[in-house]
Amino acid sequence: MEKRRTFIKSAGLTAGAIAISGWIPGCSENTINTKKWNEMPLSLRFKPFELKLKHVFTIATNSRTTTPDILTELEWNGVIGYGEASLPPYLKETQESVSQFLSKVDVSKFINPFLMEDIQDYVDGLSEGDYAAKASFDIALHDLVGKLIGQPWHKIWGLNPEKTPVTCFTIGIDTPEVVKEKVKEAEEFKILKVKLGRDTDREMVETIRSVTGVPICADANQGWTDRQMALEMCHWLKEKGVVFIEQPLPKTAKEDLAWLTQNSPLPIIGDEGVQTLEDVVPASQIYSGINIKLMKCGGLRAARKMITLARALNMKVMIGCMTETSCAIAAAAQLSPLVDWADLDGNLLISNDLFDGTKVTDGKITLNDRPGIGIIPL
Amino acid sequence: MEKRRTFIKSAGLTAGAIAISGWIPGCSENTINTKKWNEMPLSLRFKPFELKLKHVFTIATNSRTTTPDILTELEWNGVIGYGEASLPPYLKETQESVSQFLSKVDVSKFINPFLMEDIQDYVDGLSEGDYAAKASFDIALHDLVGKLIGQPWHKIWGLNPEKTPVTCFTIGIDTPEVVKEKVKEAEEFKILKVKLGRDTDREMVETIRSVTGVPICADANQGWTDRQMALEMCHWLKEKGVVFIEQPLPKTAKEDLAWLTQNSPLPIIGDEGVQTLEDVVPASQIYSGINIKLMKCGGLRAARKMITLARALNMKVMIGCMTETSCAIAAAAQLSPLVDWADLDGNLLISNDLFDGTKVTDGKITLNDRPGIGIIPL
Repeated sequence: MEKRRTFIKSAGLTAGAIAISGWIPGCSENTINTKKWNEMPLSLRFKPFELKLKHVFTIATNSRTTTPDILTELEWNGVIGYGEASLPPYLKETQESVSQFLSKVDVSKFINPFLMEDIQDYVDGLSEGDYAAKASFDIALHDLVGKLIGQPWHKIWGLNPEKTPVTCFTIGIDTPEVVKEKVKEAEEFKILKVKLGRDTDREMVETIRSVTGVPICADANQGWTDRQMALEMCHWLKEKGVVFIEQPLPKTAKEDLAWLTQNSPLPIIGDEGVQTLEDVVPASQIYSGINIKLMKCGGLRAARKMITLARALNMKVMIGCMTETSCAIAAAAQLSPLVDWADLDGNLLISNDLFDGTKVTDGKITLNDRPGIGIIPL
Repeated sequence: MEKRRTFIKSAGLTAGAIAISGWIPGCSENTINTKKWNEMPLSLRFKPFELKLKHVFTIATNSRTTTPDILTELEWNGVIGYGEASLPPYLKETQESVSQFLSKVDVSKFINPFLMEDIQDYVDGLSEGDYAAKASFDIALHDLVGKLIGQPWHKIWGLNPEKTPVTCFTIGIDTPEVVKEKVKEAEEFKILKVKLGRDTDREMVETIRSVTGVPICADANQGWTDRQMALEMCHWLKEKGVVFIEQPLPKTAKEDLAWLTQNSPLPIIGDEGVQTLEDVVPASQIYSGINIKLMKCGGLRAARKMITLARALNMKVMIGCMTETSCAIAAAAQLSPLVDWADLDGNLLISNDLFDGTKVTDGKITLNDRPGIGIIPL
């Protein structure tokens, strides 16, 4: 007991600064801050934002130069949690639908942000879909509560920040000249992602291979239709150093996908075919693994559960993204030590990022020690 | 920015006390304590302890008056996390096997207790079984890290402490007179648990019903053998106000159990048949729900994953215990807002408890706001 008193006495306390590296002490039994928060309702704000893409972005189904986005802020006792919904035009949700959803969210009835399960059950229960809208709330709530606890979520979840994966960097479909240029620009990355699903597939892969030998992951975005052709492509891609293929066939072609998964030399990852928590158990009969995206599943709470489920079902796990600011990317990055592959380059594809967050160093995601999701507004 | 400075300035900081009720502030972005912990290895201690039972305890397979136990302490920077392994004689593990296992655990190579996943992967990887031994480590690690974070785990997990279930209280097999006496002593409890699986089953239930009308949960501990007889008992028990039956048939009788689950008017809960995380997916084909016990599954980390899995598979979840001190009970109680039923009376059955922890008030588990698993040595 004497030892403990001495320890308390010597624990120097200073307010207002955040230790970015080294040990973050949190509040121990010995050093806990006894100031009480005020009992006050949560408050939620949101506004539209337009993400500007560095390059015209072409996948199997469309081309574009911007992505609509909604920014959220959840505030309590002067602490602000940041969130975001990214709304690429090929998905159902829009700035209007997200605004409409968030307008319905009455957080003023909650005076304790730590009751995350209750708050999220309420928000999730407001509608059937609206997963990006729900993700924008989930991310802001995690950021807020992490800041209140004083720890980053990767640390609260007990993860090793050194165990983040390398992230792939996406090379959009383009002319061979532009593709070569993009690949050279991406030389920092240890794995590239190529969008397939058009008649130029082999050319795209050959073009990349003419410049670099790094591993490639391939994403067909449901662009192929014939399972035999898909299997032949899988064999060819494997020879070319591709490590997995995402959504080779339409998500509705479940039997063909299951057949392909059984016969393919490459892992078959479900993306469009695996949206939410409910999809994971059925997906285990169809795919080798799943691509989890916060905007698809509703945020970090659902994503964590999807990882637990997928692992129990012996599935591979990747975590992906849309074009997003460093807000949603940093949130997803908190989970990344748990996954096999990460595709968290969405913030690198835009020219008007709003936050300083997760960095990519030598192709590897680098988590910081800031509390919450680890971002600071620029 | 001005507003934030004012906020920081007004945040009074005092060390050494823990607010037991009301808002626990943790360390916010604004108030974080910048003291750095020393880089030092973790240290683990353990010692045997004998739990003394208040009553002779009889279930289908044996009677006893004590339970062997191992107490663990995991220390880092002067903060101690407490853990425990309870070793009832009908299970494989013993004080010797747990001591042997814990002697092999070299935590001195870890200088950062926050890397819980790495540390637990290492400990779990040391052997195939030893789940109670692993639980004693898992509980101590959670207690330590929760204290370092300065928050109770139910709060870190975002759970509502008001949503704890009522806990059942076990009435062991005995003469009608003693059973009546035990039921009267248990009048605080809103649900009772009766141990069945012998030829006195109907008499036991009738005896309880002669004294009280509260709901009953039944546990046959694999004591029945005939599925048709089991089904008839389920119908009879349902009429008597029983809400579910645990392990009616031997865990190896999987087909009969699946048949019973399909036909029974009561939920059939797997206990002996569902030990670890790996058992949950197969159990979904056999049982309506699972009884999770920290000593069976290896601790809180595995238990949380089991709950996520069971929910995704539409299964009921109960959390149970052995005879244990308030240490392991308080650890399990952290999870209890997530379950349908709790059977966390193990500390109430012993006369030599070592900790002040979770209370039962009007039959309901009451979580406190102490950091970690919420216990203080008596």
